[in-house]
Amino acid sequence: MPRILGIDPGIRCLGWGVIDADGSHYNYLEAGVVRPSANRHLAERLLHIERALDVVIARHSPELCSLENVFYHKNPRSMLTLGQAQAAGILCAARAGMEVTLYTPREIKQAVTGRGGADKQQVRFMVERILGLRFTDEPDDLSDALAVAICHAGRFENAAREGKGALA
Amino acid sequence: MPRILGIDPGIRCLGWGVIDADGSHYNYLEAGVVRPSANRHLAERLLHIERALDVVIARHSPELCSLENVFYHKNPRSMLTLGQAQAAGILCAARAGMEVTLYTPREIKQAVTGRGGADKQQVRFMVERILGLRFTDEPDDLSDALAVAICHAGRFENAAREGKGALA
Repeated sequence: MPRILGIDPGIRCLGWGVIDADGSHYNYLEAGVVRPSANRHLAERLLHIERALDVVIARHSPELCSLENVFYHKNPRSMLTLGQAQAAGILCAARAGMEVTLYTPREIKQAVTGRGGADKQQVRFMVERILGLRFTDEPDDLSDALAVAICHAGRFENAAREGKGALA
Repeated sequence: MPRILGIDPGIRCLGWGVIDADGSHYNYLEAGVVRPSANRHLAERLLHIERALDVVIARHSPELCSLENVFYHKNPRSMLTLGQAQAAGILCAARAGMEVTLYTPREIKQAVTGRGGADKQQVRFMVERILGLRFTDEPDDLSDALAVAICHAGRFENAAREGKGALA
């Protein structure tokens, strides 16, 4: 039963969520968002993300980590800050010995809703159904992070069923 | 006399260089490149960069860190990986209590050669002159990293002369 940390990376708001995957049944453990102050220097914002994720990892000891990856954004600066936030998450996970996997938004939507072109609301709705939750004011970053975790749980389960043990 | 670590970030090849700035005189201490294996997973490559920079920082205890920033690249994926490599460097520096400043390629070229549109060879030539070095087979990433350090040294000196003490 792997424990999975899903991360929706962002420098303004980073979502994270932890689930346990027991075969095709997923248990929600905890989720949240990290919002580094926009007034702070980039270095402080990255440190803020790092510290927050270190706390989450210490509390739940997840074995696997999955993050959202993006290959295109019309604003090059958004790609830069996405890369920065991703690296903070990847380094926290890798330092803790976790296996890290990246998924595109399309792969995540496909895994959670069955449709690669699903919108945010559908993703949110399916994350609620799959985990037996009911979101109220939670930001999308939180449900998106849980969606990344669910996506990885499904891939992991498939790989295990096929006897590979774990994804490369 | 601040000690400055300059970083030319890259996920394939990251350049670093350490100098001491004594007023307008700069002393070269050490420089190198980190080349994470392209066959490795992104997480391992970022850990490789982190570990290498941690060693450099422990060896020289620089107080200031400057990195090259880029706001545009025609390939969005290059912006993403640049952001990832930057974040690894920024986090190492910030964790060690260093002040981190970012400069655009134009600012760096202007500071080192007096011309924002200077080419790589001019930058290399001026870095050699300023530091009293002679490069042979060293990659550009190494001289570029020293150029970022020189750029910051100049800014720092100007700020100190104007009584600000340090750059914000």
